[in-house]
Amino acid sequence: MQPFELSLFEASRAVRARELSPVELTESVLARIAAVEGRLGAYVTVAADAALAAAARAEREISESGPRGPLHGIPMALKDLIDVAGMPTTASSRVRAGHVAERDSRVAELLGAAGAVLLGKTHTHEFAYGLTTPRTNNAWDQSRVAGGSSGGSAAAVAAGTATFAIGTDTGGSIRVPAALNGVVGLKPTYGLVPRTGVTSLSWSLDHVGPLARTVQDVALVLSAIAVHDPRDPASVPAPEPDAFAGGGDLRGLKVGVPRNHYFDRVSPEVEESVRGAIERLAELGAELVDVEIPMARYIQAVQWGLMVPEATAYHERSLRAVPDLYAADVRVLLEAGALTSAGDYLRAQRARTMMRDAWARMFDGIDVLAAPTVPMTAVEKGREAVEWADGTTETVSDGYVRLCAPANITGVPALTLPVGHDGAGLPIGMQLMARPFHDATVLRVGRVYEESVAGAGRLAPLAA
Amino acid sequence: MQPFELSLFEASRAVRARELSPVELTESVLARIAAVEGRLGAYVTVAADAALAAAARAEREISESGPRGPLHGIPMALKDLIDVAGMPTTASSRVRAGHVAERDSRVAELLGAAGAVLLGKTHTHEFAYGLTTPRTNNAWDQSRVAGGSSGGSAAAVAAGTATFAIGTDTGGSIRVPAALNGVVGLKPTYGLVPRTGVTSLSWSLDHVGPLARTVQDVALVLSAIAVHDPRDPASVPAPEPDAFAGGGDLRGLKVGVPRNHYFDRVSPEVEESVRGAIERLAELGAELVDVEIPMARYIQAVQWGLMVPEATAYHERSLRAVPDLYAADVRVLLEAGALTSAGDYLRAQRARTMMRDAWARMFDGIDVLAAPTVPMTAVEKGREAVEWADGTTETVSDGYVRLCAPANITGVPALTLPVGHDGAGLPIGMQLMARPFHDATVLRVGRVYEESVAGAGRLAPLAA
Repeated sequence: MQPFELSLFEASRAVRARELSPVELTESVLARIAAVEGRLGAYVTVAADAALAAAARAEREISESGPRGPLHGIPMALKDLIDVAGMPTTASSRVRAGHVAERDSRVAELLGAAGAVLLGKTHTHEFAYGLTTPRTNNAWDQSRVAGGSSGGSAAAVAAGTATFAIGTDTGGSIRVPAALNGVVGLKPTYGLVPRTGVTSLSWSLDHVGPLARTVQDVALVLSAIAVHDPRDPASVPAPEPDAFAGGGDLRGLKVGVPRNHYFDRVSPEVEESVRGAIERLAELGAELVDVEIPMARYIQAVQWGLMVPEATAYHERSLRAVPDLYAADVRVLLEAGALTSAGDYLRAQRARTMMRDAWARMFDGIDVLAAPTVPMTAVEKGREAVEWADGTTETVSDGYVRLCAPANITGVPALTLPVGHDGAGLPIGMQLMARPFHDATVLRVGRVYEESVAGAGRLAPLAA
Repeated sequence: MQPFELSLFEASRAVRARELSPVELTESVLARIAAVEGRLGAYVTVAADAALAAAARAEREISESGPRGPLHGIPMALKDLIDVAGMPTTASSRVRAGHVAERDSRVAELLGAAGAVLLGKTHTHEFAYGLTTPRTNNAWDQSRVAGGSSGGSAAAVAAGTATFAIGTDTGGSIRVPAALNGVVGLKPTYGLVPRTGVTSLSWSLDHVGPLARTVQDVALVLSAIAVHDPRDPASVPAPEPDAFAGGGDLRGLKVGVPRNHYFDRVSPEVEESVRGAIERLAELGAELVDVEIPMARYIQAVQWGLMVPEATAYHERSLRAVPDLYAADVRVLLEAGALTSAGDYLRAQRARTMMRDAWARMFDGIDVLAAPTVPMTAVEKGREAVEWADGTTETVSDGYVRLCAPANITGVPALTLPVGHDGAGLPIGMQLMARPFHDATVLRVGRVYEESVAGAGRLAPLAA
């Protein structure tokens, strides 16, 4: 096994045991980038020299006084919405030409303090406003979409061109690409991870979170970035979630299985894999409880009703100044936002408040909710719509957002992890959700599941 | 002195000492209502029989096992936006004809549990959407406005027709009428007092709070109603503020004195009284610190930019169904709200977030901010605009909201207390503000001030 194939946990263990140096690890990942990035298109920028310098610094520090923690000397990538001082934050957009960030985002600062090694910045759907990330290819099939908007982060982790990565999630943008690339992604509880210095899409729905190849790895990254930051108005002081440290079973755990919404208009292969994984949770001791998802018919209207006007408010000036620099699909959404009335926005806001309360009551009866992450695996690039067995059609965006949006609207933590593959060999993800600030619960359940199956943490089958 | 003239603290002390029974006290206040209500118009409904029955019950309970607390057996009034099971909540509006509340609001429930005796419901400007309360007259001069929207509550407290009262405050609606009627009013920190069961004007700015004749009394009422209620989305678990229990001076306290905004376009008599009261704080040991009010030129736009569309969203259905039942002044505001764009609303929301941060930084250097509550005393009924010495004109509403709005926008606690009279004998109020959840601080400072001056807690000179 080469160093780039190691999980964060394995790499970190090897670094601590002095079996692997951060420089060897970083060189291995950079070589992997050189070998496969041409087919992936995951990176906007690879900062190879700076990464090697940072790895050498980490190596020196570790040899002098041991590692600061599990991220020390581990190479990682940041979605290119996340400011790093002295580097451009392109947001994968022509609008940002000439931009250079003056200061580190809070999350970059925290990862730097933890000793992580920045490899570079990864592609997003332009300004995170889309579900495909057109510049990036799926790590499992390069004719398929990577998903979005954190498509570069997910593809890089899946292909071994980053040991872990950071993404953002406003309507599924961590979980969709994680599911489509067969990796693990966590949208933490709203307010748990600070967004200071991260380009906003829709501030009442935006989250920052980790992607990695195992649940255990995601938990390790979360521990480093879940801090209170008064500069993010949504940030709240919360107990730092423990990284899950043990194995065990799921006895005493109540797992909600949705009767509605989450298995409607879902491909048979996705449904079968996710139901199989839920059965596995039951075999591990969990009690399965049927639950009704409240206010399900409002989900789509609330998600788009909040996101569209908030995104337009954020882009107001540049939309007026340089409208032609936006991609057509993003520009049309931004222009639509200017037509929204305050009444429509407030209706969405009020429905969100009711939905949050109704979800809180739903969680009175269960510990976690288990569901598919997305209704279909990665579609072919360029495809715009999908047809369902019930005769309905929906856009690819709507399809990918539909099952992720409730966790953005309600702020609950939502983890996606791989639970199988479809007939074409494309990965399928299961989503685990819990009450706000019970991020440790979804990680614990995901970890127990992951340890019970073979092959967790495997790379996408992308030959060098 | 007759019982209706007693402050809440004095009445409570007398009840505890068995020198006064709740029935005697309630009878005295009801007799006062009979004597002066015709000139005041403070009440929508007086529930005399129910009040006497509640007083008799309190008397029995107290004689059996002593008072539950300082509110036990004390007669009070609720602004008629506050639900009481089995009674109409008229909101002083024809729109509410035939309405009967099914359940107690949380605040009515808490006051009931504390043993307070409900006298009746007091007038509001229709749906709290105005600053004059046209049905109610000022307790000091019946040709003048009571202020609004909690005009009935303030006039009743000032006239001795309630020992204390509850109001609501979205842009000054507790503080404006309290100042104009020479009583004490507190807009608590946003989220401290639950609004469940209280008709909303603008949910992101709405507060429930007490009015009484002394700062000490207001603190006693706050202690009974400041609880977390998960049914109010804004409610937060916060330490219940202590009722202030001692005297003392103000040594070590930093009092901010605004250089801008709060003394601009203020009548000379108001300025003189408030500056005199601030000097008194300095004599009591406080250090005065000049402060710049941040983002002052955005205050009006943010207050109205949030309030107008939120109010329209709340009234959407009845505005469509029965537009003619609203008073003309309220209807025009509600109709204006339908024309607001989501972008305008979101601009106001973003400016609010920045203003909140800027105010937090301002409070790094001071403990309290002292300022006039309103720029002018009670105007004649029917007057629509005021002219200032600088040649500008503003509507009476804008004038009354201008100095109160910052505390609604930022959520900080704001206490008004009487600090003098103008040449016509009309009361003048000073406002004390502090950091969020430092309600106890403004109450402590107000209490020290109040104890240092003669005549605190005196009734309006309204002959029976």
